[in-house]
Amino acid sequence: MKRLTIALDVMGGDFGPSVTVPASLQALTSNPELNLLLVGDPDKITPLLAKTDPSLLDRIRVIAAESVIANDARVSQAIRTSRGSSMRVALEFVKSGEAQACVSAGNTGALMGLAKLVIKPLEGIERPALVTVLPNQQRGKTVVLDLGANVECDSQMLVQFAVMGSVMAEEVVGTPNPRVALLNIGEEESKGLGNIREAATILKNIPVINYIGYLEGNDLLTGKTDVMVCDGFVGNVTLKTMEGVIRMFLSLLKSSGENGKKSWWMRWFGPALQKIVQKKLAKRFSHLNPDQYNGASLLGLRGIVIKSHGGANQRAFAVAIEQAVQAVQRQVPERIAARLEALLPKSD
Amino acid sequence: MKRLTIALDVMGGDFGPSVTVPASLQALTSNPELNLLLVGDPDKITPLLAKTDPSLLDRIRVIAAESVIANDARVSQAIRTSRGSSMRVALEFVKSGEAQACVSAGNTGALMGLAKLVIKPLEGIERPALVTVLPNQQRGKTVVLDLGANVECDSQMLVQFAVMGSVMAEEVVGTPNPRVALLNIGEEESKGLGNIREAATILKNIPVINYIGYLEGNDLLTGKTDVMVCDGFVGNVTLKTMEGVIRMFLSLLKSSGENGKKSWWMRWFGPALQKIVQKKLAKRFSHLNPDQYNGASLLGLRGIVIKSHGGANQRAFAVAIEQAVQAVQRQVPERIAARLEALLPKSD
Repeated sequence: MKRLTIALDVMGGDFGPSVTVPASLQALTSNPELNLLLVGDPDKITPLLAKTDPSLLDRIRVIAAESVIANDARVSQAIRTSRGSSMRVALEFVKSGEAQACVSAGNTGALMGLAKLVIKPLEGIERPALVTVLPNQQRGKTVVLDLGANVECDSQMLVQFAVMGSVMAEEVVGTPNPRVALLNIGEEESKGLGNIREAATILKNIPVINYIGYLEGNDLLTGKTDVMVCDGFVGNVTLKTMEGVIRMFLSLLKSSGENGKKSWWMRWFGPALQKIVQKKLAKRFSHLNPDQYNGASLLGLRGIVIKSHGGANQRAFAVAIEQAVQAVQRQVPERIAARLEALLPKSD
Repeated sequence: MKRLTIALDVMGGDFGPSVTVPASLQALTSNPELNLLLVGDPDKITPLLAKTDPSLLDRIRVIAAESVIANDARVSQAIRTSRGSSMRVALEFVKSGEAQACVSAGNTGALMGLAKLVIKPLEGIERPALVTVLPNQQRGKTVVLDLGANVECDSQMLVQFAVMGSVMAEEVVGTPNPRVALLNIGEEESKGLGNIREAATILKNIPVINYIGYLEGNDLLTGKTDVMVCDGFVGNVTLKTMEGVIRMFLSLLKSSGENGKKSWWMRWFGPALQKIVQKKLAKRFSHLNPDQYNGASLLGLRGIVIKSHGGANQRAFAVAIEQAVQAVQRQVPERIAARLEALLPKSD
């Protein structure tokens, strides 16, 4: 198996090294070919490695970084003062080729800005987009973008997202001739914002894009489309809403003994049956657990950058690392670059 | 009990009279004081009333309307040609005082525009908003607006929504000193779109509004706020996303025999237990079933207008009628007008 190296901004996210370092060890355990660069404050990282198996330690390098970009920093300010920060240093390892991918749970806007600055967008891409792949009810997968990298989008950006999403669905998910829809507040042509209506007009005239029209929020998980395109504000709110609802369901299903009350399962079925039921239900819904699909790719760059949720727990951050591993193995940027070259109008 | 009359646009929605007429009979059965004006095409309505109990028929008047506003009609065009349409005629009964409320499952934009034109906004309100009340995890309720009446909103409109939502939470839901949040893509002050940041600045300086800052999509159901404010595009997509996820969960829980396979419950528990489990689960999650909270109020008008989902089934449309009944009984517009008068700056 080919060895691969991923640079981690271990300081990012709500919990920093206390989550990212154990998650790193988990990822190393399950990927024998993986090497990790842990970029951050060595004083906070090394104590967390104290009891680590030497065979894992061999595959870790701790890289000192002078500073950390705050989660609530303004993007422009964060980028200006980014030199030496854990996020930027991690990205620079991708730029130099020492790492094949970077993972950060830090400030989304700063990651987007720095990734553009350090790694550069692909030819023909104005603005990279955050993308994720959601499981749908048809047992297929739906590519959704943008999830928050671009808060305001004009029609051209939406069209580029549609192209990138389509390539991702075909080349990475493996969906032939993927259907592409714009997320809107109605399926009729007259509905929605001006930029969306303009994007629709453009998409109808790109023959290689299988554009199927507008879909609404309730179709995110129905599998009616393989790619759902929206601006970053709407995508972010939508995805978080979805996750909120799913977490609530999972917690209702799992709830036991909250507020000193007996679990509803307990009361209905008795403790023996309860365990079986909980396990079966957890398995039944596991593919919808946000911890299982943490990690959005920053698509449209000359390298792989994965954004983890800021609030990711150990398991979820490990999933984001795993997603980076897969993106490297599937050569996502190379495939997208090749398809974009064929699709997009030449800039000369 | 006081008699009350509600005008129904029975032609609106994806299914028209085949859903709205049976729903009307259902509402009449459960509300002995209710009278209904069924506005639409008599040729389509009367056959559906053929086997109706005379005691119910006594409380129905069929009102002939010449035309129907199409679901996909452009709003400006729909309003220009609205005279004699079922939606407009129903609204005019509210204007004249012959009905105390109007319910329609038709074109949202047209309903909004016509309601403004026919019934008029309250003093101090530029644009009415679509509002709904969602159950939250704290066993409380969250007022959410706008859900699609105003696709683009400036900061002043968001502030007015916050005021109306706050009054609704206090006067209708019964929450003292309700917390008000703006829906955004991060909780930090620097996040989001310009109009949201401006609205935040204004809301901080209105002492009677208990403004608590930004919340994200995952907090729609957590009960961290009593009022969640957003523009109509985001609100519409968010609510529909939420409903899509909830419907998917409910269908996964209820699924039995799809694709010729045996139900998962059947396989695990056997048929006897299955029935008990299904019933218990359905009850447990029933408060989240979108059919149970169908009907968004158009808030900020001098009368009561309820918008049902276009895709509402009989049960859901009956819920929307029930919501209109409650709004009449609670005198929602009068209470909001009184509070607005005290809250908003005078226009002179």
